[in-house]
Amino acid sequence: MAAERTTVEWNSDCVELIDQTLLPDRYEIIQVRDVPTMINAIQRLAVRGAPAIGVAGGYGVALAARTLTGDALDAAIVALRTARPTAVNLARMVDRAASRLPYGAPAVLDEAHAIRLEELNASVEQGRRGADLIAELCGDRPVRAMTICNTGGLATVARGTALAVVHELFDRDRLVEAIALETRPLLQGARLTAWELGRMGAPYRLIVDSAGPFLLSRGAADVVLIGADRIAANGDTANKVGSFSLALGAQFAGVPFIVVAPESTVDPDTATGADIEIEDRGADEVVSFRGQRSAPPGTRAINPAFDVTPVELITALVTDQRVVRYR
Amino acid sequence: MAAERTTVEWNSDCVELIDQTLLPDRYEIIQVRDVPTMINAIQRLAVRGAPAIGVAGGYGVALAARTLTGDALDAAIVALRTARPTAVNLARMVDRAASRLPYGAPAVLDEAHAIRLEELNASVEQGRRGADLIAELCGDRPVRAMTICNTGGLATVARGTALAVVHELFDRDRLVEAIALETRPLLQGARLTAWELGRMGAPYRLIVDSAGPFLLSRGAADVVLIGADRIAANGDTANKVGSFSLALGAQFAGVPFIVVAPESTVDPDTATGADIEIEDRGADEVVSFRGQRSAPPGTRAINPAFDVTPVELITALVTDQRVVRYR
Repeated sequence: MAAERTTVEWNSDCVELIDQTLLPDRYEIIQVRDVPTMINAIQRLAVRGAPAIGVAGGYGVALAARTLTGDALDAAIVALRTARPTAVNLARMVDRAASRLPYGAPAVLDEAHAIRLEELNASVEQGRRGADLIAELCGDRPVRAMTICNTGGLATVARGTALAVVHELFDRDRLVEAIALETRPLLQGARLTAWELGRMGAPYRLIVDSAGPFLLSRGAADVVLIGADRIAANGDTANKVGSFSLALGAQFAGVPFIVVAPESTVDPDTATGADIEIEDRGADEVVSFRGQRSAPPGTRAINPAFDVTPVELITALVTDQRVVRYR
Repeated sequence: MAAERTTVEWNSDCVELIDQTLLPDRYEIIQVRDVPTMINAIQRLAVRGAPAIGVAGGYGVALAARTLTGDALDAAIVALRTARPTAVNLARMVDRAASRLPYGAPAVLDEAHAIRLEELNASVEQGRRGADLIAELCGDRPVRAMTICNTGGLATVARGTALAVVHELFDRDRLVEAIALETRPLLQGARLTAWELGRMGAPYRLIVDSAGPFLLSRGAADVVLIGADRIAANGDTANKVGSFSLALGAQFAGVPFIVVAPESTVDPDTATGADIEIEDRGADEVVSFRGQRSAPPGTRAINPAFDVTPVELITALVTDQRVVRYR
C-alpha cells in the first residue's frame, strides 16, 4: 500500500495524475504544471470522482499560487472552481486552498497536502468501519461482496469509499471475492473497478448490471456495497444508476445493503430523495459502447446518470465518522 | 404489414432470411438453397429466436426433400435437427416437416408453410390478447410499455411475442411510447428491438438495463412486457437476464408485469423455477461488445444467459391461446 502510486500526488514541482481515460488499456501518468492543464484534466475526466477532483482542485490552486499574481491568479481560481460545475467538492476544496493565499504559496501547498491527507484518512476510516460492520452483520468470516461503478482509490486518492471496504476485507483475509457490475453506460465497473481489484490482487468477477439482482437472489453475494453522490437528510441515497435495482435485489434476497461515503456527502438541506434532481446525460452514451455504435441511427434514449435508493431499502450508512443503522 | 418482409420467407425455390447478424448496421437478405447453408445461418445466429429457428428448420427439411434422397437425406435431417441443440422448437419442427417425407417433397413444403403460418397467427393472437389485457388493467388509453431483449418479428416470423403486444397497441393507437432495455451483454434490445420499433414507426426510447427499475419507480411506464424462454408449471418464468430486476421494479412501482409467449413455452414437466438450470455463457460476452474490449485482460465473469422471475412477481401470462391472471 505505502509504495503504491495514488490517484493524485505532488512531485516536487508538479501534480501527477493517473490518466483514467486510458484505463484499463494503458496506465499513464500525467504531469500537471499549470492551471489550464489541470482544468483540462478535470474536464476530460482524466481525474474523476468527487473527492479526487477536490484534491486535484486544491493542488491546482497551489500551482496557480506559484506562478500567477493579481487578476491572472484570481481568474485562474475562478476557472478551476467551475471546471465541473456539478462537483461540489471541487469548489469547496478550491476555496479552502485559496483561503491560504494571503500566507503565501507554501501555505497554499500545505493546505492542498492537508486536503489530500484528509481524503486518504477518510478512505481508511470508511474501510475500517465498513469491514467492522460487515463482521457484525455477517459474522467474522470471509464474504462475497457485490459493488457497482467505481468507488475505489481512483475516485478518491487511495482505497476509496465502498471499494475501501472491499480492500479492508481483503487485507483482513475476509474477502472470498468481489463481484463488480460493469456499470453501463460508461463502464466504470468494467474499466476501473476491475483494474483496481486486479491491482489489489483481490479475487473478483465481472457481471452485466442486470445480472446483479438475480445473482443476489441465487445467493451469490453476502453483502452489497455502494458509494453515494448525495445522501438526503432522511437517508435516501443518490448514486450511479443501477444502485436502486441492486437494493431491490438485496431486499428480496435478505442481503445487507450498505452505503459508504464521506460525511460531506450527507446533505442536510435535501430532505428526501424526491428533492434530488436526476440529471439526464443524453443519448450518445446509451447508443454506443466504447465508441462502438449499438443502436440504429436516430435512436433516442433516456439516460439518468444516477438513481435514488429509498432509505427503507438501505441497511446502513458508513461514513468516515460514524455508522448509521437504518434497520 | 402485408407487404412487409418477414423474418423467414419462401420464395419459389429458396428460403429468404433477414440476416440478423448485420442489424442494425445493414439490412440484407440471405437466400438459402441447401441444408448446409441453412445450418450455417442457424449456427451463426443469422436467424435466431426459438420460433423463427423452428420455421427455418421446417423449410430446411423442404429444401432437403427437393434435392436429396436416401442416406444423404437422412443425414441432412439429423444435421438440421441438431444445428442448435438447446432450441427445442428446431428439433420439434424439423421432425414435424420430416414426418411428411413419405408423401413427397411438395407435402413437406406444405407442412413448412403450415408451421410458418401457425407462428404468424400465434403472434397475432398474442398481440391481440395482450393488448386486450392491458386495456383491462390500465384502462382503454394510450400507455407507455417497457420491454427487454428482442421479442419481435425477428424472433418469430412477424410481430413476435411481447413486442407483438406493443405492435398491436401501436396499431390501435394506444401506444404513447415503447421503452426498450438495451439488454447486455448481446444488446438485442439496442440492435434488434430498436430496429423493429423504428421499422414499425412506433415512438421509442432506449435505456441501459439498470435504469429500467428506477424509471419504473419514477412512473416512466404503465406496463412491463417480457417474452419467455421457459415457463414452469407454477408460472415461474425463465427469460433473458434482467427480467427479474424489471419484475422487482414493477412490483415496487405497482406496474403490471406481463409475460407473453406461445403456449409451447409452458413446460408442465418443470415444477418451479428452482428446477430450471441457468446456463453460463462464459466471460467473453461480458468483457466486450462487438470486439470492443471493456475490462482488463484476464478478467473473469459470471454470465447467466437468463434469469428466473418467480410467479409472485408476475401479473399475468398471455399465450396464443389464453390469458392466465396470477394476481
